[in-house]
Amino acid sequence: AKKKDFSFSNRGKTLEDELNETNDYYLQLGLAVIHKKPVPVQIVKVEYPSRSAAVIREAYFRAPSTTDYNGVWNGRYVDFEAKETENKTSFPLKNIHDHQIHHMSQVVKHQGLAFLIIRFSSLERYFIMRFEALEIFWNRMITGGRKSISLEEIEDTAVEIMPGAFPRIDYLPVLQNL
Amino acid sequence: AKKKDFSFSNRGKTLEDELNETNDYYLQLGLAVIHKKPVPVQIVKVEYPSRSAAVIREAYFRAPSTTDYNGVWNGRYVDFEAKETENKTSFPLKNIHDHQIHHMSQVVKHQGLAFLIIRFSSLERYFIMRFEALEIFWNRMITGGRKSISLEEIEDTAVEIMPGAFPRIDYLPVLQNL
Ligand SMILES: [Mg+2]
Ligand SMILES: [Mg+2]
Repeated sequence: AKKKDFSFSNRGKTLEDELNETNDYYLQLGLAVIHKKPVPVQIVKVEYPSRSAAVIREAYFRAPSTTDYNGVWNGRYVDFEAKETENKTSFPLKNIHDHQIHHMSQVVKHQGLAFLIIRFSSLERYFIMRFEALEIFWNRMITGGRKSISLEEIEDTAVEIMPGAFPRIDYLPVLQNL
Repeated sequence: AKKKDFSFSNRGKTLEDELNETNDYYLQLGLAVIHKKPVPVQIVKVEYPSRSAAVIREAYFRAPSTTDYNGVWNGRYVDFEAKETENKTSFPLKNIHDHQIHHMSQVVKHQGLAFLIIRFSSLERYFIMRFEALEIFWNRMITGGRKSISLEEIEDTAVEIMPGAFPRIDYLPVLQNL
Protein backbone atom coordinates (compact mmCIF):
# COMPACT_ATOMS: atom_id res chain seq x y z
CA ALA A 1 0.00 0.00 0.00
CA LYS A 2 1.05 3.55 -0.74
CA LYS A 3 1.95 5.54 2.31
CA LYS A 4 2.30 9.23 2.56
CA ASP A 5 4.65 10.71 5.14
CA PHE A 6 2.76 13.56 6.79
CA SER A 7 5.51 14.43 9.27
CA PHE A 8 6.58 17.50 7.32
CA SER A 9 3.45 18.03 5.31
CA ASN A 10 1.41 21.18 5.66
CA ARG A 11 -1.73 19.16 6.47
CA GLY A 12 -4.10 21.30 4.44
CA LYS A 13 -2.82 24.59 5.78
CA THR A 14 -2.55 27.54 3.47
CA LEU A 15 0.73 29.40 3.16
CA GLU A 16 -0.99 32.25 4.95
CA ASP A 17 -1.78 29.96 7.91
CA GLU A 18 1.82 28.82 7.99
CA LEU A 19 3.18 32.36 7.90
CA ASN A 20 0.75 33.58 10.54
CA GLU A 21 1.94 30.77 12.83
CA THR A 22 5.53 31.65 12.05
CA ASN A 23 4.97 35.34 12.76
CA ASP A 24 3.17 34.52 16.02
CA TYR A 25 6.17 32.43 17.03
CA TYR A 26 8.55 35.29 16.20
CA LEU A 27 6.37 37.71 18.16
CA GLN A 28 6.17 35.44 21.22
CA LEU A 29 9.91 34.96 21.25
CA GLY A 30 10.59 38.65 20.68
CA LEU A 31 12.41 37.97 17.40
CA ALA A 32 10.41 40.24 15.11
CA VAL A 33 7.13 42.16 14.91
CA ILE A 34 5.61 41.17 11.58
CA HIS A 35 1.88 41.05 10.85
CA LYS A 36 -0.35 40.25 7.96
CA LYS A 37 -2.32 43.26 6.82
CA PRO A 38 -6.10 42.92 6.85
CA VAL A 39 -7.81 42.31 3.53
CA PRO A 40 -8.84 45.73 2.21
CA VAL A 41 -12.60 46.08 1.84
CA GLN A 42 -14.80 48.97 0.79
CA ILE A 43 -17.63 49.12 3.30
CA VAL A 44 -20.93 50.36 1.86
CA LYS A 45 -23.63 49.44 4.37
CA VAL A 46 -23.48 48.79 8.10
CA GLU A 47 -26.38 47.85 10.36
CA TYR A 48 -26.38 48.64 14.06
CA PRO A 49 -28.75 46.19 15.71
CA SER A 50 -29.58 47.19 19.26
CA ARG A 51 -27.72 45.23 21.94
CA SER A 52 -25.34 43.60 19.49
CA ALA A 53 -22.32 44.31 17.38
CA ALA A 54 -22.44 46.32 14.16
CA VAL A 55 -22.94 44.11 11.10
CA ILE A 56 -21.44 44.96 7.73
CA ARG A 57 -24.19 44.15 5.19
CA GLU A 58 -22.57 45.32 1.98
CA ALA A 59 -18.89 45.55 1.22
CA TYR A 60 -16.54 44.84 -1.66
CA PHE A 61 -13.01 43.56 -1.95
CA ARG A 62 -10.52 46.23 -3.00
CA ALA A 63 -7.25 45.63 -4.79
CA PRO A 64 -4.41 45.79 -2.24
CA SER A 65 -2.02 48.68 -2.86
CA THR A 66 0.79 47.03 -0.94
CA THR A 67 2.02 43.55 -0.07
CA ASP A 68 0.41 41.36 2.57
CA TYR A 69 3.02 41.36 5.32
CA ASN A 70 5.20 43.97 6.90
CA GLY A 71 6.92 44.80 10.15
CA VAL A 72 10.21 45.31 11.88
CA TRP A 73 13.11 42.97 12.52
CA ASN A 74 16.45 43.91 13.94
CA GLY A 75 15.84 47.61 13.24
CA ARG A 76 15.04 46.88 9.60
CA TYR A 77 11.76 47.40 7.80
CA VAL A 78 10.57 44.07 6.38
CA ASP A 79 7.94 43.79 3.64
CA PHE A 80 6.88 40.75 1.68
CA GLU A 81 4.28 39.09 -0.44
CA ALA A 82 3.49 35.39 -0.10
CA LYS A 83 2.22 33.29 -2.98
CA GLU A 84 1.54 29.61 -3.45
CA THR A 85 1.23 27.70 -6.68
CA GLU A 86 0.15 24.17 -7.59
CA ASN A 87 2.44 24.36 -10.60
CA LYS A 88 5.36 21.91 -10.37
CA THR A 89 7.79 23.48 -12.83
CA SER A 90 7.39 27.25 -12.62
CA PHE A 91 5.90 30.18 -10.75
CA PRO A 92 3.34 32.15 -12.83
CA LEU A 93 3.88 35.89 -12.51
CA LYS A 94 0.18 36.63 -13.01
CA ASN A 95 -0.06 35.94 -9.26
CA ILE A 96 1.56 39.29 -8.61
CA HIS A 97 0.00 42.71 -9.23
CA ASP A 98 2.03 45.49 -10.77
CA HIS A 99 1.19 47.86 -7.91
CA GLN A 100 2.78 45.30 -5.59
CA ILE A 101 5.95 45.36 -7.71
CA HIS A 102 5.87 49.15 -7.60
CA HIS A 103 5.40 49.07 -3.83
CA MET A 104 8.31 46.68 -3.28
CA SER A 105 10.59 48.76 -5.48
CA GLN A 106 9.81 51.81 -3.36
CA VAL A 107 10.49 49.85 -0.18
CA VAL A 108 13.92 48.87 -1.47
CA LYS A 109 14.64 52.51 -2.42
CA HIS A 110 14.01 53.41 1.22
CA GLN A 111 16.41 50.67 2.38
CA GLY A 112 13.72 48.28 3.48
CA LEU A 113 13.91 44.53 2.87
CA ALA A 114 11.39 43.43 0.25
CA PHE A 115 10.95 39.87 -0.90
CA LEU A 116 8.60 37.18 -2.10
CA ILE A 117 7.90 33.88 -0.33
CA ILE A 118 6.83 31.20 -2.80
CA ARG A 119 5.31 27.86 -1.89
CA PHE A 120 5.22 25.12 -4.48
CA SER A 121 2.34 23.32 -2.80
CA SER A 122 2.55 20.12 -4.84
CA LEU A 123 6.27 19.85 -4.17
CA GLU A 124 6.18 21.11 -0.57
CA ARG A 125 9.06 23.39 -1.38
CA TYR A 126 9.43 26.97 -0.14
CA PHE A 127 11.63 29.74 -1.47
CA ILE A 128 12.44 33.27 -0.48
CA MET A 129 13.34 35.53 -3.39
CA ARG A 130 14.49 39.06 -2.79
CA PHE A 131 12.76 41.77 -4.75
CA GLU A 132 15.91 42.59 -6.70
CA ALA A 133 15.76 39.11 -8.32
CA LEU A 134 12.00 39.13 -8.78
CA GLU A 135 12.27 42.47 -10.55
CA ILE A 136 14.55 40.97 -13.20
CA PHE A 137 11.98 38.28 -14.06
CA TRP A 138 9.18 40.84 -13.92
CA ASN A 139 11.01 43.11 -16.36
CA ARG A 140 11.67 40.14 -18.64
CA MET A 141 7.91 39.55 -18.76
CA ILE A 142 6.90 43.14 -19.41
CA THR A 143 9.45 43.38 -22.20
CA GLY A 144 7.81 40.41 -23.92
CA GLY A 145 9.57 37.47 -22.29
CA ARG A 146 8.12 34.49 -20.47
CA LYS A 147 5.29 35.08 -17.99
CA SER A 148 6.67 32.80 -15.31
CA ILE A 149 9.85 31.96 -13.43
CA SER A 150 11.07 28.44 -13.97
CA LEU A 151 11.78 26.28 -10.93
CA GLU A 152 15.39 26.07 -12.03
CA GLU A 153 15.67 29.87 -12.14
CA ILE A 154 14.14 30.01 -8.68
CA GLU A 155 16.63 27.45 -7.39
CA ASP A 156 19.40 29.66 -8.81
CA THR A 157 18.21 33.06 -7.58
CA ALA A 158 16.24 32.38 -4.39
CA VAL A 159 17.01 30.70 -1.07
CA GLU A 160 15.14 27.50 -0.21
CA ILE A 161 13.56 27.26 3.23
CA MET A 162 13.05 23.80 4.68
CA PRO A 163 9.71 23.71 6.50
CA GLY A 164 9.84 22.71 10.14
CA ALA A 165 7.65 22.54 13.20
CA PHE A 166 8.43 25.65 15.26
CA PRO A 167 8.51 27.93 13.45
CA ARG A 168 6.91 26.48 10.37
CA ILE A 169 8.63 28.68 7.74
CA ASP A 170 11.75 30.04 9.38
CA TYR A 171 12.54 32.94 7.07
CA LEU A 172 14.29 35.33 9.48
CA PRO A 173 17.70 33.59 9.31
CA VAL A 174 17.61 34.01 5.54
CA LEU A 175 17.21 37.79 5.92
CA GLN A 176 20.65 38.00 7.53
CA ASN A 177 22.14 37.23 4.15
CA LEU A 178 19.71 38.98 1.83
CA ALA B 1 -20.22 89.80 12.51
CA LYS B 2 -18.13 86.89 13.67
CA LYS B 3 -15.72 85.63 11.08
CA LYS B 4 -13.90 82.38 11.06
CA ASP B 5 -10.59 82.09 9.25
CA PHE B 6 -10.76 78.88 7.27
CA SER B 7 -7.38 79.29 5.60
CA PHE B 8 -5.75 76.71 7.85
CA SER B 9 -8.86 74.87 8.93
CA ASN B 10 -9.31 71.22 8.18
CA ARG B 11 -12.64 71.90 6.42
CA GLY B 12 -14.43 68.88 7.85
CA LYS B 13 -11.65 66.44 7.08
CA THR B 14 -10.92 63.70 9.53
CA LEU B 15 -7.41 63.24 10.84
CA GLU B 16 -7.31 60.04 8.80
CA ASP B 17 -8.06 62.04 5.61
CA GLU B 18 -5.32 64.49 6.46
CA LEU B 19 -2.78 61.75 7.13
CA ASN B 20 -3.72 59.83 4.00
CA GLU B 21 -3.13 63.01 1.96
CA THR B 22 0.15 63.55 3.75
CA ASN B 23 1.29 59.97 3.13
CA ASP B 24 0.29 60.21 -0.55
CA TYR B 25 2.39 63.35 -0.80
CA TYR B 26 5.36 61.59 0.81
CA LEU B 27 4.91 58.64 -1.53
CA GLN B 28 4.71 60.81 -4.66
CA LEU B 29 7.83 62.72 -3.68
CA GLY B 30 9.71 59.56 -2.73
CA LEU B 31 10.12 60.71 0.87
CA ALA B 32 8.61 57.71 2.65
CA VAL B 33 6.43 54.65 2.05
CA ILE B 34 3.78 54.78 4.77
CA HIS B 35 0.26 53.41 4.44
CA LYS B 36 -2.82 53.13 6.57
CA LYS B 37 -3.69 49.53 7.28
CA PRO B 38 -7.13 48.39 6.18
CA VAL B 39 -9.79 48.10 8.88
CA PRO B 40 -9.74 44.49 10.06
CA VAL B 41 -13.02 42.70 9.40
CA GLN B 42 -14.16 39.15 9.96
CA ILE B 43 -15.89 38.07 6.78
CA VAL B 44 -18.73 35.59 7.32
CA LYS B 45 -20.78 35.55 4.12
CA VAL B 46 -19.85 36.40 0.54
CA GLU B 47 -22.14 36.30 -2.47
CA TYR B 48 -20.81 35.78 -5.99
CA PRO B 49 -23.38 37.23 -8.38
CA SER B 50 -22.75 36.20 -11.98
CA ARG B 51 -21.12 38.88 -14.13
CA SER B 52 -20.33 41.16 -11.20
CA ALA B 53 -17.97 41.53 -8.29
CA ALA B 54 -18.21 39.43 -5.13
CA VAL B 55 -20.33 41.10 -2.45
CA ILE B 56 -19.62 40.69 1.24
CA ARG B 57 -23.05 40.27 2.86
CA GLU B 58 -22.07 39.61 6.47
CA ALA B 59 -18.94 40.77 8.21
CA TYR B 60 -17.94 42.15 11.59
CA PHE B 61 -15.39 44.66 12.76
CA ARG B 62 -12.48 43.09 14.60
CA ALA B 63 -10.30 44.78 17.21
CA PRO B 64 -7.05 45.86 15.56
CA SER B 65 -3.99 44.11 16.98
CA THR B 66 -1.64 46.82 15.79
CA THR B 67 -1.65 50.54 15.11
CA ASP B 68 -3.19 52.08 12.00
CA TYR B 69 -0.13 53.27 10.08
CA ASN B 70 3.23 51.80 9.30
CA GLY B 71 5.95 51.86 6.72
CA VAL B 72 9.53 52.78 6.00
CA TRP B 73 11.33 56.10 6.02
CA ASN B 74 15.03 56.61 5.63
CA GLY B 75 15.73 52.93 6.35
CA ARG B 76 13.74 53.10 9.60
CA TYR B 77 10.58 51.22 10.45
CA VAL B 78 7.84 53.75 11.29
CA ASP B 79 4.67 52.83 13.18
CA PHE B 80 2.02 55.10 14.60
CA GLU B 81 -1.48 55.51 15.82
CA ALA B 82 -3.53 58.62 15.06
CA LYS B 83 -6.26 59.91 17.35
CA GLU B 84 -8.41 62.98 17.42
CA THR B 85 -10.32 64.44 20.34
CA GLU B 86 -12.90 67.22 20.68
CA ASN B 87 -11.66 67.75 24.22
CA LYS B 88 -9.97 71.14 24.68
CA THR B 89 -7.92 70.50 27.78
CA SER B 90 -6.74 66.90 27.71
CA PHE B 91 -6.39 63.73 25.66
CA PRO B 92 -8.44 60.82 27.06
CA LEU B 93 -6.44 57.59 27.11
CA LYS B 94 -9.54 55.47 26.62
CA ASN B 95 -8.99 56.21 22.91
CA ILE B 96 -6.07 53.79 22.92
CA HIS B 97 -6.28 50.01 23.27
CA ASP B 98 -3.84 48.16 25.49
CA HIS B 99 -2.86 45.81 22.65
CA GLN B 100 -1.81 48.91 20.70
CA ILE B 101 0.40 49.97 23.60
CA HIS B 102 1.82 46.45 23.70
CA HIS B 103 2.43 46.56 19.95
CA MET B 104 4.22 49.91 20.08
CA SER B 105 6.42 48.76 22.95
CA GLN B 106 7.51 45.77 20.86
CA VAL B 107 8.22 48.03 17.88
CA VAL B 108 10.50 50.18 20.03
CA LYS B 109 12.29 47.06 21.33
CA HIS B 110 13.08 46.19 17.72
CA GLN B 111 14.45 49.73 17.11
CA GLY B 112 11.44 50.93 15.19
CA LEU B 113 10.00 54.42 15.62
CA ALA B 114 6.62 54.30 17.36
CA PHE B 115 4.54 57.35 18.14
CA LEU B 116 1.10 58.84 18.49
CA ILE B 117 -0.31 61.70 16.42
CA ILE B 118 -2.98 63.61 18.34
CA ARG B 119 -5.35 66.16 16.86
CA PHE B 120 -7.24 68.48 19.17
CA SER B 121 -9.99 69.10 16.66
CA SER B 122 -11.61 72.04 18.48
CA LEU B 123 -8.26 73.76 18.86
CA GLU B 124 -6.85 72.78 15.45
CA ARG B 125 -3.65 71.75 17.15
CA TYR B 126 -1.60 68.66 16.26
CA PHE B 127 1.05 66.89 18.30
CA ILE B 128 3.39 64.01 17.78
CA MET B 129 4.27 62.13 20.96
CA ARG B 130 6.82 59.36 20.87
CA PHE B 131 5.80 56.09 22.45
CA GLU B 132 8.35 56.44 25.24
CA ALA B 133 6.43 59.48 26.55
CA LEU B 134 2.99 57.97 25.96
CA GLU B 135 4.04 54.90 27.92
CA ILE B 136 4.72 57.01 31.01
CA PHE B 137 1.20 58.45 30.97
CA TRP B 138 -0.25 55.02 30.21
CA ASN B 139 1.56 53.50 33.17
CA ARG B 140 0.38 56.35 35.39
CA MET B 141 -3.19 55.42 34.42
CA ILE B 142 -2.88 51.69 34.98
CA THR B 143 -1.32 52.30 38.38
CA GLY B 144 -4.39 54.30 39.43
CA GLY B 145 -3.54 57.78 38.17
CA ARG B 146 -5.47 60.06 35.83
CA LYS B 147 -7.04 58.57 32.71
CA SER B 148 -5.95 61.35 30.39
CA ILE B 149 -2.97 63.47 29.44
CA SER B 150 -3.41 67.16 30.09
CA LEU B 151 -2.77 69.58 27.23
CA GLU B 152 0.01 71.12 29.29
CA GLU B 153 1.69 67.73 29.68
CA ILE B 154 1.37 67.20 25.94
CA GLU B 155 2.93 70.59 25.24
CA ASP B 156 5.83 69.55 27.50
CA THR B 157 6.44 66.03 26.16
CA ALA B 158 5.32 66.08 22.53
CA VAL B 159 6.26 68.12 19.46
CA GLU B 160 3.61 70.39 17.96
CA ILE B 161 3.07 70.20 14.19
CA MET B 162 1.67 73.26 12.46
CA PRO B 163 -0.79 72.14 9.79
CA GLY B 164 -0.07 73.33 6.27
CA ALA B 165 -1.20 72.81 2.72
CA PHE B 166 1.28 70.36 1.14
CA PRO B 167 1.72 68.20 3.01
CA ARG B 168 -1.09 68.73 5.45
CA ILE B 169 0.54 67.24 8.57
CA ASP B 170 4.27 67.28 7.94
CA TYR B 171 5.43 64.78 10.55
CA LEU B 172 8.57 63.40 8.84
CA PRO B 173 10.86 66.32 9.84
CA VAL B 174 9.91 65.68 13.46
CA LEU B 175 11.12 62.07 13.20
CA GLN B 176 14.67 63.31 12.60
CA ASN B 177 14.77 64.37 16.23
CA LEU B 178 12.66 61.69 17.87
MG1 LIG C 1 -1.72 38.64 -1.45
MG1 LIG D 1 -7.18 53.51 15.12
